[in-house]
Amino acid sequence: MTELRGVGIGLGVAQGPIARMAEPLPAPSDAPSTSSPEDETARVRDAVAAVARELEARGAQAGGAAQDVLEAQAMMAEDPSLESEIDARIGAGKTAEFAVFDAFASFRDTLSAMGGYLGERAADLDDVAQRVIARLRGVAAPGVPDPGHPFVLVAKDLAPADTALLDLDKVLALVTTEGGPTSHTAILAREKSIVAVVGVAGAKDLREGETVIVDAASGVVTTSPTPDELDRAQNRAEARASAASAPITPGALADGTAIPLLANLGNPAGAAEAVALGAEGVGLFRTEFLFLSSGSAPTIDQQKESYTALLSAFPGKKVVVRVLDAGADKPLPFLNDAHEENPALGLRGIRALRASEDILREQLTALAEADAATRATPEGPADLWVMAPMVATVEETSYFTALARDYGIRTAGVMVEVPSSALLADRVLAHADFASIGTNDLTQYTMAADRLLGSVASFQDPWHPAVLRLIREVGDAGRLHGKPVGICGEAAADPLLAVVLVGLGATSLSMAPTALADVRASLLQFSLDDARRVAEAALAADDAASARDAAREAAAAPITATIQKETVS
Amino acid sequence: MTELRGVGIGLGVAQGPIARMAEPLPAPSDAPSTSSPEDETARVRDAVAAVARELEARGAQAGGAAQDVLEAQAMMAEDPSLESEIDARIGAGKTAEFAVFDAFASFRDTLSAMGGYLGERAADLDDVAQRVIARLRGVAAPGVPDPGHPFVLVAKDLAPADTALLDLDKVLALVTTEGGPTSHTAILAREKSIVAVVGVAGAKDLREGETVIVDAASGVVTTSPTPDELDRAQNRAEARASAASAPITPGALADGTAIPLLANLGNPAGAAEAVALGAEGVGLFRTEFLFLSSGSAPTIDQQKESYTALLSAFPGKKVVVRVLDAGADKPLPFLNDAHEENPALGLRGIRALRASEDILREQLTALAEADAATRATPEGPADLWVMAPMVATVEETSYFTALARDYGIRTAGVMVEVPSSALLADRVLAHADFASIGTNDLTQYTMAADRLLGSVASFQDPWHPAVLRLIREVGDAGRLHGKPVGICGEAAADPLLAVVLVGLGATSLSMAPTALADVRASLLQFSLDDARRVAEAALAADDAASARDAAREAAAAPITATIQKETVS
Repeated sequence: MTELRGVGIGLGVAQGPIARMAEPLPAPSDAPSTSSPEDETARVRDAVAAVARELEARGAQAGGAAQDVLEAQAMMAEDPSLESEIDARIGAGKTAEFAVFDAFASFRDTLSAMGGYLGERAADLDDVAQRVIARLRGVAAPGVPDPGHPFVLVAKDLAPADTALLDLDKVLALVTTEGGPTSHTAILAREKSIVAVVGVAGAKDLREGETVIVDAASGVVTTSPTPDELDRAQNRAEARASAASAPITPGALADGTAIPLLANLGNPAGAAEAVALGAEGVGLFRTEFLFLSSGSAPTIDQQKESYTALLSAFPGKKVVVRVLDAGADKPLPFLNDAHEENPALGLRGIRALRASEDILREQLTALAEADAATRATPEGPADLWVMAPMVATVEETSYFTALARDYGIRTAGVMVEVPSSALLADRVLAHADFASIGTNDLTQYTMAADRLLGSVASFQDPWHPAVLRLIREVGDAGRLHGKPVGICGEAAADPLLAVVLVGLGATSLSMAPTALADVRASLLQFSLDDARRVAEAALAADDAASARDAAREAAAAPITATIQKETVS
Repeated sequence: MTELRGVGIGLGVAQGPIARMAEPLPAPSDAPSTSSPEDETARVRDAVAAVARELEARGAQAGGAAQDVLEAQAMMAEDPSLESEIDARIGAGKTAEFAVFDAFASFRDTLSAMGGYLGERAADLDDVAQRVIARLRGVAAPGVPDPGHPFVLVAKDLAPADTALLDLDKVLALVTTEGGPTSHTAILAREKSIVAVVGVAGAKDLREGETVIVDAASGVVTTSPTPDELDRAQNRAEARASAASAPITPGALADGTAIPLLANLGNPAGAAEAVALGAEGVGLFRTEFLFLSSGSAPTIDQQKESYTALLSAFPGKKVVVRVLDAGADKPLPFLNDAHEENPALGLRGIRALRASEDILREQLTALAEADAATRATPEGPADLWVMAPMVATVEETSYFTALARDYGIRTAGVMVEVPSSALLADRVLAHADFASIGTNDLTQYTMAADRLLGSVASFQDPWHPAVLRLIREVGDAGRLHGKPVGICGEAAADPLLAVVLVGLGATSLSMAPTALADVRASLLQFSLDDARRVAEAALAADDAASARDAAREAAAAPITATIQKETVS
């Protein structure tokens, strides 16, 4: 038994055989072939036929729409005109690998130029070419593996394109060698509730097919597990499955302290799923989707329609809408078209809105009108809260809250994601009705490390005690002023970190709806005193990894403490 | 009397008539001229002659090297081949303005292409062309004004090129309508000890020639001053001049608490001036100059030579050397050639050095060898301290300090310029021998506002209470561990902020050597208790401007307090 360490996402545990994501193949050299054209042609025929049969077989197994796609790929592989293009290149003295690479590339370009449906098939051709070349070289085909049975996927990190191809029903767990808790893989794992441990450098040596236990709760991948270990993991997985199917109750601690569990949504279309998974409202409604699709700002009426749809889905519930957060990774030319050397430190969030105040005023108008419209419905209105992104100063806070109130918004607050507003939270909350902490950006600025830059990914960990200290500042300020402090960054979806956040003073947690069940179950294991103790343990650590370990250790005690209290009383 | 408010740089006060920096002229249109070619040619001849005579007159007045430059410019203006180029364009129906613009531009390109000395004269041609066009239009020539007497320069903000041309002996004071306390103008004012108030929006309406009082201590520009006001300003200026010529004493508070005043240096060549101005050592020696000049890292021997020259200039004094701070505004391709979306949040400082550890090891080797070499000199060695830039974590701290000690460096510390290391200063200082706060970057990250981006310049103010709070964290940690906490950012050169920084726990201040006299005089007015009280007043404010005002108000009281104490004792 060997333990490989990484960062666990969520609380799950899973076991199974490994399948590796093969790396993309290097482009073949166009040096002359050393074998005869006849031999090379024969090799290509064999490889193409084998790939086509394999694609057909996978199609038959998959059925449905996937079968159509795979059979179309098999036909492409054996397309006669592609065959003659390959033969021509081999005839000119090229290797089989280069002939396939080059002939497919020329076909790809022709298809791309056609656009439309055929243009979209160009990527399929690439996939077929890679499979044929891999077979010619006798290596594993690149991309998502399909061993024909459920598997633990091991990859460097998953790109969005990979996950689109991934049959998630077959994936027992995800293990990556790179990437941190905010990597694409981690976000996917949270969204889809897949057991995952990311950043496991040692996983690069795992063998195809060997059985491992992936324990997200401890961030450990166990190789060569004993039968006992496999049994224990199985029991834990089953216990967790029954928790997930447990009745949905409002978010609360073991002592009954209510901690409303809310949903992060980027579109009103997600409301139904959020309600079904037990969201007690919306803690972060991102409004960028309205602005990103077109080249200009949407009209007040277009906005009102979306906001009304959203509010109608949550009668009697809190719905926190964030006004447009433009800038950095979401450039909107009509808001800020200046070239910025460091856009993450530029004219974004409330800064950009102030510079284009009309857009902000229109958005507040639309929100107030949607609020008024839903008051008249039989289900009654939602409780609309509105907040500004990227607030750095007390002055920005009073600017935004005063403006929102001018438009009849009753509850106006700010996102705390810049260190300065956390440090001055006591004064920010003198003006704002509430604060909502965006842990992703707060971590980025506190550590001065771009959260989207791979070379500094190790800094992007909300468990870092410096980040926890800033969150505590906001929690303390909330208590001082008797005002709510929510969390709406990735951190809230981490079941153990959720406990720490509550211990630091968070009064509600907002997350991807699929993370609600795990966090709900986690909170129920701790009293508020427990949570504070776990938070103190994390705060006292020197770094993110030790904070996580210290919290885990402190969290192991409370059950005893609770039992003792019950025995005493 | 009207008061215009801005941000004062330093403590000075000055009075005098205004001269405005004229804005660059828009490029002339190439639309056909409506007057005859003969009239246009005559206009050009007059304008060129007038500009040539003006340049000659200014040259005669200036004398020396400036006279040569100005007379060469006058000759350029009347160059016969340039004249025929202008005539050809006028003959083709262009306006006099366009003909001058276009003919000079074509000459400029020819000169530039020649490179060397002639290439460098290209910029002079631009200046001459602008003067001729301004005269043709009957407007003031753009660029630095020269009214023939000392003046208060009013500008938007000064570019480096402007200040190179500026005759500082004629400038009584600087007033800018834009720019903040870290603008180029502010840095120039501190370096050259020029009275300045920056960011005075109301100054755009000041009339050419009107007399104003510029009071940097209060950040106020007074228009239409009364004779009384002028007298008082004069008295203050004289009192300050005598303070500047006061004997140079070691930096200390009124109660005798020593606060060593050190120099920021970017090159050993600056050492003599720093010593002459009373620097008690070097608080920040930047080593980038060694790396920026060539495309590769310097050899150990080249480095050792520079470090030895530096250390030899400060026998028995503290010299704090910062290892290479690459990245952001100082890209070094051999260290990090990756494209980064946000280089200020990227692989820079100690992060980049770790990724290229050989460079760091060579630098430490050279420093240790220079230290050993100066031990043998009769004057004795300097006290060498070495620190790492951009440290964000406890782990980076122990990495750097352990490595430095491996090379025999006795005193190893870190720069605190990332919020996380300020927040965890108590743990960082458990490993580091000292901390030095870089207020410019610390402000940038705390406010999440690029310090080089104009649209967010208003955030870049080290007086912001959030920044002051982080500095206090470091000061407290220093006291806890009994370890020194220096300041080496721009903030230390602000005489009032220097008092606040000492009140927050700074034990030494490092600055441009020309700022030493003002800061020395300022510290002597306050006891440590005073400084703490002034710091508390600034900390309690909501924003940077109120913090500055609150500190000023609190600072007005201590003189009474000191007198009372003296009376009592």
